[in-house]
Amino acid sequence: MSVVLLQQQYGERIDAVLSRTLHELDELAPELKAAMEYGLLQGGKRVRPMLVYASGELLGNASPRALDAAAAAVECIHAYSLIHDDLPAMDNDDLRRGKPTVHKAFDEATAILAGDALQTLAFELLSRQWDDGLDAGRRLRMVQELARASGYAGMCGGQALDMQSEGKLIDQSRLETLHRHKTGALIRAAVRLGALCARDLDEAHLNALSRYAEAIGLAFQVQDDILDITTDTQTLGKTRGKDLVQQKSTYPALLGLDGARQLAQQLYQQSLAALAEIPYPTHTLEAFAHYIVKREF
Amino acid sequence: MSVVLLQQQYGERIDAVLSRTLHELDELAPELKAAMEYGLLQGGKRVRPMLVYASGELLGNASPRALDAAAAAVECIHAYSLIHDDLPAMDNDDLRRGKPTVHKAFDEATAILAGDALQTLAFELLSRQWDDGLDAGRRLRMVQELARASGYAGMCGGQALDMQSEGKLIDQSRLETLHRHKTGALIRAAVRLGALCARDLDEAHLNALSRYAEAIGLAFQVQDDILDITTDTQTLGKTRGKDLVQQKSTYPALLGLDGARQLAQQLYQQSLAALAEIPYPTHTLEAFAHYIVKREF
Repeated sequence: MSVVLLQQQYGERIDAVLSRTLHELDELAPELKAAMEYGLLQGGKRVRPMLVYASGELLGNASPRALDAAAAAVECIHAYSLIHDDLPAMDNDDLRRGKPTVHKAFDEATAILAGDALQTLAFELLSRQWDDGLDAGRRLRMVQELARASGYAGMCGGQALDMQSEGKLIDQSRLETLHRHKTGALIRAAVRLGALCARDLDEAHLNALSRYAEAIGLAFQVQDDILDITTDTQTLGKTRGKDLVQQKSTYPALLGLDGARQLAQQLYQQSLAALAEIPYPTHTLEAFAHYIVKREF
Repeated sequence: MSVVLLQQQYGERIDAVLSRTLHELDELAPELKAAMEYGLLQGGKRVRPMLVYASGELLGNASPRALDAAAAAVECIHAYSLIHDDLPAMDNDDLRRGKPTVHKAFDEATAILAGDALQTLAFELLSRQWDDGLDAGRRLRMVQELARASGYAGMCGGQALDMQSEGKLIDQSRLETLHRHKTGALIRAAVRLGALCARDLDEAHLNALSRYAEAIGLAFQVQDDILDITTDTQTLGKTRGKDLVQQKSTYPALLGLDGARQLAQQLYQQSLAALAEIPYPTHTLEAFAHYIVKREF
């Protein structure tokens, strides 16, 4: 199945789950709820939920309700991070996916709070008592995986490293550390959470999937850096050349455009090598890796 | 034992747990780590951790390691909420406990991120696999309790309600709803998490403790409103009369100073009535309720 079709199929599924989750919230604070909805349901590529579903369905015997909860939780974390990253004190972005960012559509205080509440919602979703056949120990492990991937040792730490590095020349090793935390950790968590929804899980397969995820996570960022300088603002849905303006270190700046493209290709091959260790049909995740390095927006 | 002694004893214990937790973080992002430490270890009354410990120890047979994790998790949520509330876009406070707020001591972006990472840390702490005799199901329930209390249906929703109400006259029922969410939910969660650390838990006792917590949670806020107009800035450690300046509805404004004091007294009696249903020595929690309504800063 093509990634476009997968994106449509899984995209509709995750959007339905996220909509339902938000509609279940009461009317205590309508403005906050609207801001959470705006930040969460504006579209986007839904890369992380797709990885949750594809990874879980690969191993078979995954609980569909657990997959929905995990996919929604990961997307809540991703959405909250975008809302906070866009704030004036952070990246100061007015546009996200071609539309006003949350603090522009609402206000700054509401954007901060919407991000905060979306982070909490992620952990609430994972800790709900679904009737899904997963035992509490497995669910608790999923909470822990998501917390580690998104906190100081993961996404938040990576964002801090990114802020520290602005305007400085950093070497490739530090740039890799930055991205493995800032975006890689959550992509890895998405793949691992999907796998953890499988009732019978082989830890060796989980390890192989983690290596797959680490490779495509970094490839995703390399491709993002490439697109930032090769694609126009309208196609990108955000301001072109923003990295240059903000004096951020990027792979094309460190390795040249060809060097960056080669690195993306190497990471693609690494991801396929990891999948080859898994004795199930891995074509969906293969197609996904291909999409990551070939996408043009 | 007097509350002052309890505060010292539990205060030392929670400070040691929080210090150890932060020291275990690696040196990935030293600035972020320093801001988290600054926001978390600046002192404060440690009301919520004390409630976790007192509630858990009351029921007996509580796991000490689980109590430490729960107390630290609740304090991480509280600390993150203060850091974000103090931001220029929110309450715009320069001082907290007589010292510069996190965004003043560091910068706004770091303060946003430190709050984010402290929230995540709370859920990581609760989901760690301690060797503490608590089963995974109980721990997962603790994650869920904390998430519900701090997200849209709790603290974040209450904060949003507070923002919506600024400059408006709201009635007592709405003011109560606001405080039950904004501060009450986390105080209730502290007491419940403590109880959930007890290996043999009677749900009737948990219910009675919840009613105790709801009463003292609201009493705490009523007393806060009273102190805001009766205590000088230096004793308070924050700017006196801030509520008036920000045109916030308060209990003294709605009920008069005497009316507010009467309400605090009623809530105190309600808290004692709830404790009377528990067949264990509840003197620590009684002393605590007394302290809440009699404290002068």
